[in-house]
Amino acid sequence: MADSNSNRTMLSVTGFSCGGWDSVASTRHEIRSPVTGEIIAEVNAAGPDIAAMVDYARCTGGPRLREMTFHDRARLLKALAIHINANKDCLYALNPLTGATRRDGWYDIDGGIGTVFSYASKGRREMPDDRIYLDGGVELLSRNGNFLGQHVATPLTGVALQVNAFNFPVWGMLEKLAPALLAGVPCIVRPATVTSYLAAECFRLIIDSRILPEGAVQFTVGDPSGIFDPLDTQDIVCFTGSASTASAIRSQPAIVSGRIRLTVEQDSLNATVLGPDVVPESADFTAFIDETIREITTKAGQKCTAIRRILVPERQLPDVVEAITFSLSRVSVGDPGLSGVDMGPLVSARQLADVRNSAARIAGETELVSGSLEQITALGVEPGQGAFFSPLLFRCADADNAHTVHSVEAFGPVSVVMPYRDIAHASDIANRGGGSLVVSVFTSDAEAARRFTLSSAPWHGRIYFNNAGCMAEATGHGSPMPQMLHGGPGRAGGGEELGGIRSVLHFMQRSAVQGSPQLLTAITNQWVDGAAEKLRGRHPFRRFFDELAVGDSITTGKRQITLTDIEHFAEFTGDRFYAHMDDAAARRNPFFPGRVAHGYLLLSFAAGLFVDPEEGPVLANTGLSDLTFEKPVVAGESIHVKLTVKRKTPRTPEYGEIRWNVTILNQDGERVAGYELRTMNSMQPVGGSVADG
Amino acid sequence: MADSNSNRTMLSVTGFSCGGWDSVASTRHEIRSPVTGEIIAEVNAAGPDIAAMVDYARCTGGPRLREMTFHDRARLLKALAIHINANKDCLYALNPLTGATRRDGWYDIDGGIGTVFSYASKGRREMPDDRIYLDGGVELLSRNGNFLGQHVATPLTGVALQVNAFNFPVWGMLEKLAPALLAGVPCIVRPATVTSYLAAECFRLIIDSRILPEGAVQFTVGDPSGIFDPLDTQDIVCFTGSASTASAIRSQPAIVSGRIRLTVEQDSLNATVLGPDVVPESADFTAFIDETIREITTKAGQKCTAIRRILVPERQLPDVVEAITFSLSRVSVGDPGLSGVDMGPLVSARQLADVRNSAARIAGETELVSGSLEQITALGVEPGQGAFFSPLLFRCADADNAHTVHSVEAFGPVSVVMPYRDIAHASDIANRGGGSLVVSVFTSDAEAARRFTLSSAPWHGRIYFNNAGCMAEATGHGSPMPQMLHGGPGRAGGGEELGGIRSVLHFMQRSAVQGSPQLLTAITNQWVDGAAEKLRGRHPFRRFFDELAVGDSITTGKRQITLTDIEHFAEFTGDRFYAHMDDAAARRNPFFPGRVAHGYLLLSFAAGLFVDPEEGPVLANTGLSDLTFEKPVVAGESIHVKLTVKRKTPRTPEYGEIRWNVTILNQDGERVAGYELRTMNSMQPVGGSVADG
Repeated sequence: MADSNSNRTMLSVTGFSCGGWDSVASTRHEIRSPVTGEIIAEVNAAGPDIAAMVDYARCTGGPRLREMTFHDRARLLKALAIHINANKDCLYALNPLTGATRRDGWYDIDGGIGTVFSYASKGRREMPDDRIYLDGGVELLSRNGNFLGQHVATPLTGVALQVNAFNFPVWGMLEKLAPALLAGVPCIVRPATVTSYLAAECFRLIIDSRILPEGAVQFTVGDPSGIFDPLDTQDIVCFTGSASTASAIRSQPAIVSGRIRLTVEQDSLNATVLGPDVVPESADFTAFIDETIREITTKAGQKCTAIRRILVPERQLPDVVEAITFSLSRVSVGDPGLSGVDMGPLVSARQLADVRNSAARIAGETELVSGSLEQITALGVEPGQGAFFSPLLFRCADADNAHTVHSVEAFGPVSVVMPYRDIAHASDIANRGGGSLVVSVFTSDAEAARRFTLSSAPWHGRIYFNNAGCMAEATGHGSPMPQMLHGGPGRAGGGEELGGIRSVLHFMQRSAVQGSPQLLTAITNQWVDGAAEKLRGRHPFRRFFDELAVGDSITTGKRQITLTDIEHFAEFTGDRFYAHMDDAAARRNPFFPGRVAHGYLLLSFAAGLFVDPEEGPVLANTGLSDLTFEKPVVAGESIHVKLTVKRKTPRTPEYGEIRWNVTILNQDGERVAGYELRTMNSMQPVGGSVADG
Repeated sequence: MADSNSNRTMLSVTGFSCGGWDSVASTRHEIRSPVTGEIIAEVNAAGPDIAAMVDYARCTGGPRLREMTFHDRARLLKALAIHINANKDCLYALNPLTGATRRDGWYDIDGGIGTVFSYASKGRREMPDDRIYLDGGVELLSRNGNFLGQHVATPLTGVALQVNAFNFPVWGMLEKLAPALLAGVPCIVRPATVTSYLAAECFRLIIDSRILPEGAVQFTVGDPSGIFDPLDTQDIVCFTGSASTASAIRSQPAIVSGRIRLTVEQDSLNATVLGPDVVPESADFTAFIDETIREITTKAGQKCTAIRRILVPERQLPDVVEAITFSLSRVSVGDPGLSGVDMGPLVSARQLADVRNSAARIAGETELVSGSLEQITALGVEPGQGAFFSPLLFRCADADNAHTVHSVEAFGPVSVVMPYRDIAHASDIANRGGGSLVVSVFTSDAEAARRFTLSSAPWHGRIYFNNAGCMAEATGHGSPMPQMLHGGPGRAGGGEELGGIRSVLHFMQRSAVQGSPQLLTAITNQWVDGAAEKLRGRHPFRRFFDELAVGDSITTGKRQITLTDIEHFAEFTGDRFYAHMDDAAARRNPFFPGRVAHGYLLLSFAAGLFVDPEEGPVLANTGLSDLTFEKPVVAGESIHVKLTVKRKTPRTPEYGEIRWNVTILNQDGERVAGYELRTMNSMQPVGGSVADG
């Protein structure tokens, strides 16, 4: 395990399995510094006892996580993010050993912590304080409403095996852990060996914090052969890495059987497009050049979202080449620990050889316009030392007839600029990458943006539009945001990560539940129309949050609506809409039998009927949803209201949200309007619960 | 192709490719009647030119479908459902040839038609009249709101290759076609050979109707080898069939590469559970026995959702065995064309041999309590003729130590009854099937239902609860409903079909779109906060549906809220809630600075400010959504309103729905409340458009 206090001494990386750190194995991998070539770390090379780890996750971690609610787990994530953030110096201390600059490290370390914070927040705001997540609304499956459907999601009872890439050892681990743990699924993390010491250091912070329940997370290094063998139906493999490794995983018997879920994020030949409307020296043009340079050089281009192809209107090609070439010439490459260095080395000598080889293939059908494939001299490093590589820009004159530029990903600071004729052509070229994680378009032309989206969205997991109007706040072509999906079709692997709660659901099973309103209410803890309504003693407005139960209900007395009420309401509010004021005009309207009461009059009178006015547990009406006016009310008719507790969600230690189902009925018991009302209610009276009156 | 006028003459089945029916090939498969053994159909055996079909779908069908909106395509589906329904007699004429009774045919034929109707309806109600579907809401990605995110779904630009099972030749085809076509993806249907003549007859109805655009659907029979080879990134394979075929598909290079989407529905050892609360001779018990018998015998058990395992409380086992045995003994097996026959033969002699073989394996660890594995005499059939098989009931004394009953699916009228101790044990046994399409529970015990769901939902695509309270309206253990997901994890294949719009999205790519409010509005045709608001001449209430544009906006004058207003509103409506009436109590409340205006007063005054009252294009306020009270308003403050067209959705030829973004602001321009208002607006004035005033 990494020792953060003296990161220039040898780092030793072992796994964490079945509740403890593995002992140091006799066979070990050596990891060399990409800056100096010295050995900086040793990693256990023996294979883990993966069957024991999977069993431990299933039998110890899973049950402990699943007995918590989504809110419980969200609170764990928040505590974890706070803990890692408070101790992140030890991560930044190791960061330059991976070849990363401080700025590169910010994406990895602070980016990872921010992702955990985001899931902590979304888990509380967008998921219930329960163990079952509701997917969509109730489906009416029968004429009389005695048989209904509701989709639910529940956590897989297996383990998530997360196989990460080398380039973002912290972010890559945390962005997979956060949604899985929020779902309630224990994880086994398998980092890439070459940067495993940084992942291990972050993992050590997680373990030392003692925030997560026993068995929730494990960590494995060493020989990966056979690690899929113990997996079965309720397990999921999340892989980020190369297309060839992904294919090998898909060929595993455990995967071919179809029992194990697999989500893959692999190669991607991401493109950026300079919009047809953008001219040199404009603000949009500057934004485009700046972002392109940043994407080529961040992490020395070792980023799955980096820009590999630069698509430019034919007439702007010379200006773009000149601007990029100029900016690349000013990029300072060297020891990432030195201030003033913009770009560090590639992660290893092997990676350097791979990138050089891929760049040479690209050179076969393009022209090199900036940089060199040869060894370069790097700032603060002995000549010939380290895995340094210069940023490269190739020019491809005919994107339509090129192949390598659309199929070979040089996983380094390598990009190809190519001309296009019009936005349809740009879209075609972008799509020739065969599926990517992200394509960006710099444009202020709304019509071009719509057309590009229609023709390119099926090919890309994310489309990023930038222009002068938003560049100050734009989050970056290459930055996956926790709220937005990360992943892409085809060559990009077909997986989905992040995207808020969407990725939490990937660790859960979606099931259709069918049954009576009564059973659906009991199963989901959400009152469903047709289930029992409990008419208990006290008015529900007199009950504290903890005293209210789903299904608690009250039916009010009646109130007649008079023509005087309607006319007075119109006069008072100023709403003299013809349907309320002009009987002949209202009759001409396809919806009304004649003059009708205002919808807002009904809402207001309804509140007058159901509100219990004295100071008490109800703190505020915070809003309402899904209001539908179903049947008009004419003068002389009367209304009454049914108010039922639909759902309870704690929000703070002091109060929680009550969602009420409100139905306004007429004198014949027909529905006039329905909606969901929200109030905030105090948790508990001082001195504890009050007995029912 | 099937000739419906004389179904006892030889049926001839060919494919429909590239716009025309294939000619009859020289090599043909013969299909024999499962009743008489006579040859009833010949099917082209030569392999299709699949590359040409895929190309035709991509280049002809796809573009034509994608230029339509979701509503356009939903209308096509409705027309198609009406057409097939009007001509279904020709399908029912062929139905008994497959071994199906009239009632079996109802599930297949009317069930299929109903599914198309359901998608036609959901497409209009739940999807936009646009080519881009919005997945979730807008995500705020920046502090000042100049950079936002929105997830969208767009149709795949490839083809859906749909490989169907033999048991529901009509439903199986239509339930896959409907969501794919609604998504905008052209389809190639590959029916199971043994019942292909019935699928072909339904397909002929589709082609003859000329409702679908050219290239939208094709049909292929014959040698399937190599049919996956031309598929690529934007294509999807939807397979229903055996686990072994599914594994073979997953091993195809095209699938291992990860480029092609695959959705699989394969084996499933579905269970039913008699709840711990249910006693013999109760209504719940009767419902359980009736539904179990129906599931064993419908389609002679050749149903992926049929009940294979019957889980019963230990003490009820004798009564259940007796009741099922008695009911099965009364099942009349014979020629499905005869009235009074409850169950027809299996689909073929081969299927008979398979089922008998599987039943014999199950017999190895169980005891046969009803039926016989031998040839049976069937009603209206010569002895020894046809693929008839008797319903079988096995008893398994120890479900925990049995294996075959949880892993071998006899795809016929074969079921195993087994005892359980308590609901947790029942859940464990049900889950031992390794993932199923459906599990049913007959119970009125709400707590047992919740506990069973928590422990079993991850293992089953659908959980069906039935009891006396809903049995009259329950839709059936074995009946996939178009609104509810069909599919299951693990052994069931891991796929998802149906579930309303959920399955439409499986034929689309979900992409994250990031950009400025202005570009997001242009891309999605939905106004986003921060995008331009057009303040044109006339009040938006004076514009017809066709004259309104997304972003049309008005800002009203101000209105001051006085203490008199608040007191009058309280008096008039009866809503004397303390926060509006008692300054000291309101100050004690964590949300309010003192007495505040009623939320409904603000809503009502807002309408008074923005409504243009004269008779005109606005027909009705039909409701509102997502109302949030954001900041309290105290006496002396003033409000004004911003009303902006957010989205337009045509509903009938006469009118359409306008969704308005409404923001109520205070005198300092701060947000007081926000909501989405819905109105119904007339399409067009008589005599055409009115120029802007």
